[in-house]
Amino acid sequence: MSLEHLRRDLQYQYGPGASPLFVYSCATLVHNVRCYLDALKSMHSWKDVVFQGAAGVLAYSMKANGNPRVAAALLEAGVQRATCIHYCLDSITLASTPLPATSRWEVEEAVRGGSLLNVDSIFDACRVVEVATDVGLQAKLLLRLNPAIDALTHPYLSTAMADCKFGIEESQVKQVLGVLWSARNSVKVEGVHVHLGSAITDLSVYGNVMQSVSRVLYQIFHYNKPEQIRQFGWHDAAVVNLGGGLGVFPAPHQLPRDHPLALIDTGTSMDPTPTPADLMKVVLPLLPEGVTLILEPGRSLVASAGVLMTEILGVKTNGGKVFVVTDAAMTEVIRPALYSSKHPVTRLTQPKTDTILKEAAHLVDVVGPVCESGDYLAKDCRLPPPAVTQGDCLLVWMTGAYCSAMASNYNMRPHVMEVMVHGPANYKIIRRPQNFDDIMKEYQ
Amino acid sequence: MSLEHLRRDLQYQYGPGASPLFVYSCATLVHNVRCYLDALKSMHSWKDVVFQGAAGVLAYSMKANGNPRVAAALLEAGVQRATCIHYCLDSITLASTPLPATSRWEVEEAVRGGSLLNVDSIFDACRVVEVATDVGLQAKLLLRLNPAIDALTHPYLSTAMADCKFGIEESQVKQVLGVLWSARNSVKVEGVHVHLGSAITDLSVYGNVMQSVSRVLYQIFHYNKPEQIRQFGWHDAAVVNLGGGLGVFPAPHQLPRDHPLALIDTGTSMDPTPTPADLMKVVLPLLPEGVTLILEPGRSLVASAGVLMTEILGVKTNGGKVFVVTDAAMTEVIRPALYSSKHPVTRLTQPKTDTILKEAAHLVDVVGPVCESGDYLAKDCRLPPPAVTQGDCLLVWMTGAYCSAMASNYNMRPHVMEVMVHGPANYKIIRRPQNFDDIMKEYQ
Repeated sequence: MSLEHLRRDLQYQYGPGASPLFVYSCATLVHNVRCYLDALKSMHSWKDVVFQGAAGVLAYSMKANGNPRVAAALLEAGVQRATCIHYCLDSITLASTPLPATSRWEVEEAVRGGSLLNVDSIFDACRVVEVATDVGLQAKLLLRLNPAIDALTHPYLSTAMADCKFGIEESQVKQVLGVLWSARNSVKVEGVHVHLGSAITDLSVYGNVMQSVSRVLYQIFHYNKPEQIRQFGWHDAAVVNLGGGLGVFPAPHQLPRDHPLALIDTGTSMDPTPTPADLMKVVLPLLPEGVTLILEPGRSLVASAGVLMTEILGVKTNGGKVFVVTDAAMTEVIRPALYSSKHPVTRLTQPKTDTILKEAAHLVDVVGPVCESGDYLAKDCRLPPPAVTQGDCLLVWMTGAYCSAMASNYNMRPHVMEVMVHGPANYKIIRRPQNFDDIMKEYQ
Repeated sequence: MSLEHLRRDLQYQYGPGASPLFVYSCATLVHNVRCYLDALKSMHSWKDVVFQGAAGVLAYSMKANGNPRVAAALLEAGVQRATCIHYCLDSITLASTPLPATSRWEVEEAVRGGSLLNVDSIFDACRVVEVATDVGLQAKLLLRLNPAIDALTHPYLSTAMADCKFGIEESQVKQVLGVLWSARNSVKVEGVHVHLGSAITDLSVYGNVMQSVSRVLYQIFHYNKPEQIRQFGWHDAAVVNLGGGLGVFPAPHQLPRDHPLALIDTGTSMDPTPTPADLMKVVLPLLPEGVTLILEPGRSLVASAGVLMTEILGVKTNGGKVFVVTDAAMTEVIRPALYSSKHPVTRLTQPKTDTILKEAAHLVDVVGPVCESGDYLAKDCRLPPPAVTQGDCLLVWMTGAYCSAMASNYNMRPHVMEVMVHGPANYKIIRRPQNFDDIMKEYQ
C-alpha cells in the first residue's frame, strides 16, 4: 500500500483527525528482528535461538514504543521478551526493569510475575529483599552495573558514565552481593545487566564493558571467598543482559524507493551505523563461556519502522529564513528539541527529477504550530524546488521510537492516530486519535 | 492546611496514587492576579479595569496550565479572558490564538466564537479571510508582529527574534494588510499582538518593541495612503496585546515560612525579577494614546502557585556523586531537561536549624526513575544535613506552569493527581491520577 493511498483513504474516513499520523511498517519490524536473530545465530543454531532461548535471547525494550500492537508484531517476528512492568499480554513476559528505582508495587508485580528484575543500587537491593520476603517467592535478579564508560553519544542518552544515576559501580558490587546473599532464600542473582545508552555508533566501547562484566560475573560466582565456589556462590549465575543502544542501522525498505532521502536534506548523517552482526563480532569473543546473552534493544528495532505523516499548514518567511509550518509538532516528536536529533524529512509526492537538477535548493526550517521556538521537526534543511505549499504532505522518518512514547498534550494537542501497514494492501489502525474529551477526562 | 497534613490525608485516601502530586495554592493565584490588576490600575481607575475592560485587560494564556479549575480560579480573581481554542466554559472567552498556524477547524471555531484572532503570516491571513467568508461572520483580528528583538532568555523561550517562526516581520505588514483590506467585509483588524517569549528579566527590550508596535498601528490606521485615513483605514484599531513573558516574580507566600529555599539550594537565582508594575512603568509612557492594552501572561500567573510533592525512593552514590531518586520524573517536570531551568527544591519536613549550621552541605542531584540521563529535577544542589532518606518527601517549587501542561506518559507513567488548596483547611482534587486503563484506552 502506497503512503499516498493510505493518506487518501484515512482522510476520507477521518477528515482532519487523520493528520498528523504515525505509520508503522510491519515488514521493517520483521526485518529489524531478523537482523538481530541472524546475528545471535552465530552463538548457536537458529533453532536454539528462536525456540529455546538458552544461549541468545532477543528482548524488546517497550519504552521505545509502548503500542501493544507494535510489541505483538515484534514478538511474532521472533522477539522473545518485551520489557514493561505494566503489560501482561499473551506471550509478553515481564522482564527486567531498566529503571534506577521503581515503586514498591512495581517490584511486587515483577516478583509475582517471575520476572528477571534489575537491582540498581544498595537501597534497591534492600527493597527487593524486603518485597520478595513479604511475597514469599524467590526473586530472580540481575545486577545493573555502572561500568563508568562514556558511550560517546548525547549526554541525555548516555547511561553508563561514572557520575550517572544508573547502576551499581564496581566498588559497590560486593556490598550489594552481601545484602542479597544474606537473603538468599528470597533472592537469586542470575547475572549482570549493562545498558550503555542510546544511539551508540562506536562499538569499541564494548571492549571495556565486557571486561567489567566478566569481573562482576566472577564476583557473583565466587561470592565472598574463592574456596566457597559452588558452596555458597550463585555458581549458575550466567546471564548477561547488554541492554540496547545500537544506532539505527540502515534497512533496505526504511525509505520507499520513490522518496529519496535527499529530497529534503536535514543534514542527517548517512554514515553506516553498526549492525547487530557488528555488535556480535565485538561482543562474542569477549563473552565468558556458557553465558546466556540477552540483547534488549528498543530504538534499533522500531525507529526505522515508523514514519510521521504531516500536512503543511503554510509556508512563511522571517528574517530571510523560510519556515514550513506543519500540523505536527514537538508534542509528537520532541527528540529534535530535547536531544538535537535529526530526522530525515521527505515530501510524500516526489517532484520531477529534472526540476530538481536545474534549480538550487532553499534552506528551510520545518516547524510545528506549538507556541515555542523549540517546536521544530528539522532545522536548516535543503529543500530543492518546486516549493512546497499549504496542503502538501511531508514524511518525518525514523520516528518509530521515542516519538509517540514521549508524546504530550501540550497546547491541548491530542495524541495522534497510529497505523500499522501489513503488506501491500492491508493496514490497521492501532491507536485511535485522542479527542478533546479524552484530554479533559481526568479533570474534575 | 499544611502540606504535611495534606500529604497524610491524601496518602490515607489514595495510597501510592497520591505521589507524586501537584499542589496549587489559590491564595497565590489570587495574589498574582492582584499584582497585574494593580499595575493595570495605573492606566485607569480600578473599576474600569475590572468591570469594563476598556483600557487594560488581563488575559490568561492557558497553555501554561490547562487545568480548568486553575483557569476558573484566575477568572474569579479578576482575569478577564483565558486563551484556549478548545475551551468554552462559563465566562472563559475564546481569545486570540498565539500559534504560528492553526488548523482550519480551529480558525472556524474562533470566528464563530467572536474571538480576537491572531494573524501570523500572509498564508494565515489568506486562510482567515477564506474561513470568515465561508462562515459569514466578520472575524476580529490582531496582527501578530515579529519585531526582530532578542528577549535575552533561553533560545527555546524567545519568540520574537528576526529568524524565528512567529509573527509577521515589519516589511511584510503592508502585504498582509492588503490581503485583509481586500476582504474588509469579512475581517476587521483591531490591533497588534506581540509576545517576546518567556522568563524575560530585562524589561529594556520593551522600548524597541513599543516603537515597532507604534509603527504598525500607524500603518493599520493609515492603510494604504495617509489621505485615506478614516475613509478606508481601520481607524478604530487600537488594541495592543503584549502577550506574556515576565519572569516569575517573588510572591510573599510562594514559599511557606517553614520551608526556607536554602534547605536544598539548587542554585536558583534569587535576584529580584521584574513585577507587573515594573512592566507598566516601562510600557505605559510608550503606549499610543487611547489604546486598549491586553496583557496575556501564563507562567507569571501560575508558576509560583504550584508545587510538586514527591517521595524519595532511595539515595545512591555513583562516581562520588550523590543521587536522590524521587518518584517524580521528567514526565511531570521536563523543564530542567528541555530548558536547563532551575526549580527550587526543599524538604517537606524541616530539619533543626542548629544541625544545619554545624555541618557542611553535600552536593546532590535530584533525579527521577525514568530510564534516561536527562531525567533530573535538579542538579548539583547543596543539601545540608541531616541526610534525606527513602520515604522522605521533597517539594519542587515554581511548578505551576509548563509542568503538568507538558506531561507525558513516557515509560508508561500515568499523569499525576492535582490538588487546589483553598484557605487553611480546605482542598479539592482538581485532577484525578491517571490509571493504566486511561493510558491504554486509545490502543486498539
